[in-house]
Amino acid sequence: MPYYIGDVIKEEKKLIARTPEKFRETGVEVRIDTRVEEVDGKAGEVRLADGTRLPYDILVLGTGTTPLLPGIPGEDREGVFTLKTFTDALRIKAWLREVPCRKAIIIGAGFIGMEMSEAIRNLGIETQVFHRGTLPVNRWDPEFSQVVLDELRRHQVDFVTDAETKAIEAGKDHRLRLVTNHGEAEADMILMAVGIRPEVTLAKQMGLPLGETGAIRVNFSQMTPREGVYAVGDCCESFHRVSGHWVNIPLGDIANKQGRVAGRNIGGGAMIFPGIVGAQSFQVFDLEVAATGLDERAAAAVGFHPVSMLSWGNAIAGPMPGNTKLGLKLIADRATGRLLGAQAVGEAGAVSRINTLSCALWAGLTLDDVGYLDLAYAPPFSGSWDLIHIAAQALRRQI
Amino acid sequence: MPYYIGDVIKEEKKLIARTPEKFRETGVEVRIDTRVEEVDGKAGEVRLADGTRLPYDILVLGTGTTPLLPGIPGEDREGVFTLKTFTDALRIKAWLREVPCRKAIIIGAGFIGMEMSEAIRNLGIETQVFHRGTLPVNRWDPEFSQVVLDELRRHQVDFVTDAETKAIEAGKDHRLRLVTNHGEAEADMILMAVGIRPEVTLAKQMGLPLGETGAIRVNFSQMTPREGVYAVGDCCESFHRVSGHWVNIPLGDIANKQGRVAGRNIGGGAMIFPGIVGAQSFQVFDLEVAATGLDERAAAAVGFHPVSMLSWGNAIAGPMPGNTKLGLKLIADRATGRLLGAQAVGEAGAVSRINTLSCALWAGLTLDDVGYLDLAYAPPFSGSWDLIHIAAQALRRQI
Repeated sequence: MPYYIGDVIKEEKKLIARTPEKFRETGVEVRIDTRVEEVDGKAGEVRLADGTRLPYDILVLGTGTTPLLPGIPGEDREGVFTLKTFTDALRIKAWLREVPCRKAIIIGAGFIGMEMSEAIRNLGIETQVFHRGTLPVNRWDPEFSQVVLDELRRHQVDFVTDAETKAIEAGKDHRLRLVTNHGEAEADMILMAVGIRPEVTLAKQMGLPLGETGAIRVNFSQMTPREGVYAVGDCCESFHRVSGHWVNIPLGDIANKQGRVAGRNIGGGAMIFPGIVGAQSFQVFDLEVAATGLDERAAAAVGFHPVSMLSWGNAIAGPMPGNTKLGLKLIADRATGRLLGAQAVGEAGAVSRINTLSCALWAGLTLDDVGYLDLAYAPPFSGSWDLIHIAAQALRRQI
Repeated sequence: MPYYIGDVIKEEKKLIARTPEKFRETGVEVRIDTRVEEVDGKAGEVRLADGTRLPYDILVLGTGTTPLLPGIPGEDREGVFTLKTFTDALRIKAWLREVPCRKAIIIGAGFIGMEMSEAIRNLGIETQVFHRGTLPVNRWDPEFSQVVLDELRRHQVDFVTDAETKAIEAGKDHRLRLVTNHGEAEADMILMAVGIRPEVTLAKQMGLPLGETGAIRVNFSQMTPREGVYAVGDCCESFHRVSGHWVNIPLGDIANKQGRVAGRNIGGGAMIFPGIVGAQSFQVFDLEVAATGLDERAAAAVGFHPVSMLSWGNAIAGPMPGNTKLGLKLIADRATGRLLGAQAVGEAGAVSRINTLSCALWAGLTLDDVGYLDLAYAPPFSGSWDLIHIAAQALRRQI
C-alpha cells in the first residue's frame, strides 16, 4: 500500500524485526524470513526451504496473493517492480530515491495502480499509467470511472488507454523503455499492477480443494475441508451475503477478521466469520471512491433483477460553505425492492455513505427502508434529505 | 439554525415570498403570514386571525414547537431573543449588525445554544453561555459533554455552570444586564435557548389526544386519531424503533419525512413513516458530535439491560497524516447482545460512524454483527479494524 511509503516504513521494519521476540513472551514461536516449501498433510509436517521439518497439529494457510505479470520480455529487468510485500515497498522507495527517478510508468489501473500513481506523482515524478481498457477501476461503473480518470488527468497523470504491453528494453533518456501497441515510452521505473491471484501453491500441493474462484475453500469457521487445516485472508474464499456465493475479494480488513475467527476457533472458542458485502474504497488525490454490494452485472448473474440509478447531489447541506458534489449509484432488485449494491464518488462523503449502505446490505434492507433511514442530520454533514434518501427514493419510484 | 444566518437569508426570504406564486401554478393556494386562531372540527372549518373561515376536508397540523422561556422579569426586553422562526434569525442578524453587538449571552446549552455560540463567536463577539447544569448537551454522556465544553473554552466561549437566571435589566456598559445566582453579567444581546415544547394549542383546542410526551398522537400514516386530520413534524410523536415507544424528537429531517408520508397518504397513495432511531448530530467549532439510539438510562427505563463501553481510537488509519482522535461509546443489551445506542465525538468521522450504527439500530443488529460489519476500508478512511469494530468487540467481551 503506497500509504506506507515514507517514514512509517522505518517503524514497521522495527515492528517486524521485533515480532519473534514479542511473541516469545507469550510462548509462541514466530519465524520471519522463512519459506515453507512443502506441507506433508499425512505426516502432519511442514518442510522449510532449508530442509527443516516442523510437525503440526493445526495448520493455518495465510499465503495471500501473487501479483500477476503480463509475461513480456524484459519484465524481469532491474527497475521493474510489483507491489505486494513490505520488502517490495522498501525496494521501490529506495529505487525512487537513489536512481533518481524522474519518470515512472504504472501498468494497470486497479487499486494499486491508482494509489501508486498518486503516491509517485506527489513526489514530483512524471507519471504515466498504461491500461488495457478505456477507463480505470472496473469495479466502478463508467460514469464513476470517468470521474477517476478526470482526477488523474487533473493531477497531470498521463493515462494511456487500450494499451497492450509488448516488451521492456533498456532506455535511452531513462533507464527503461516500454514497448506497446501505441509505440514506445521511457521511464526510470515501471510498476506492474495488472492484478493478483490467490497464492495457493501449498494448498494445491496438499490436495486441498479450491473453489470456483481459484481460492481455497473454507467454511464459516475458516476451516478448509481438511480437519485441522484453516485458511484465512486473500488466499481463501469468503461468503458474500448479497450474492449468496463464495467469492475471493483480497482486502486487508477481511483478512484481519478471518484471522481472528480462525484463531478463536483454534484456541477452543466458537466463532464464525459472517461474510462480506463487498465494501471497498480508495482515495486518489482529492477523490474518495467507494463501492459495496453487487454491480448490475454481478446481480443479474446470480438471478436478481437489477435496476439502478445514479444520483448527483451534495456531500453536505446545499447552502453550506465547503459543499462538494457527490455521486451515488444504487442497484436494487426489481422483484423485492432489496438493495443490492452502491457506488459513490466525491471529494468528501463517499465512503461515509457507502459504509451506511454496507450496513443496509448486511441487514438485507429494501429501498423503502433506505429511503427513510434515520440518519444524524445537521447541515455541516448532510441535507435534511441525505443523498442516500434521495437516491433510494428515486430508484424506488422506478420499480 | 445558525447556519442560515448570512447571505443565505436573502435567498430564503426571496424563496418564501415566491412560495404562494410557485404553488399557484400547481393549483395549491399557499397563504403566508397568516395565523390560524381556531379549528372548528365539527364544521370542518379553520378560523383565521382576521375572522375569515376556510372549510377543509383534510387538515394537516404542522405547528412545530414553541421555545420555552425561563419566566424571569425582563425577558421581554429589546435585545432578548429566542430562535425558532426564520424571522427570529433575521431579527438576530439585524441586531448583531446594527447595535452593534460586542458581547452576547446565551442561556442554555442544547443544540441551539451550541450552534449559536459558534456562530456568534465566529463573528468576533465575546460570547458567554449560562447553563443550569455542569456540562453542555445532556443528550451525551459526561465523558463526551466534557469534550464539547473543552472545545467551547478552546474557542474563548465562557461557560458558566450551575447558573440560575433571576432577571434581565438595563445594562450600563452594554445594553442588557443578566442577574444570576452567580452575580451579574452584561451583554448587548441575550439569546434564550433553554428548550422547546411541541406547539399543540390548536390540537388541544380541537380535542385531539396528546401522547405522554405532550405531542400530538399520530399513527404510522401520520393521521391523528381523528379521521382526516394529520400531524407532522416537531408537534407530533414518532415511533422509536429501538425503545418501542412513541417519542417527540423535534428535528428537521424527521419533519421532512413525516410531511412526505402524510402528503402521499392524503394524495391517495399508501405509505407509512417507519419510525426513527434517534440519530442526531451537531457541529461546534472543530468538533463533530453525534448520537443515535438510546443512552443507558433510556434503555433501562424501557426494560433493556444496558451495558456500555467508551472506546477512544483513530478517525482514520493510525499512521496516516491528518489522523485525529475519535471517541465512540456503545450501549447494548446484556440479555440479547443487541445494539441499543451509540455516541461519538471527534474532529472528524463521528457522524459517519453514527450513521452506520443508526442503520445497524434500524435493522436490530447485535454486537456480533456490528463487530464484523463489512465496511469500506482504506487507510485514509479508517484502520483495517474500524473503531466501530473495536468498540463492538470490546463491549461484546464484557457481556
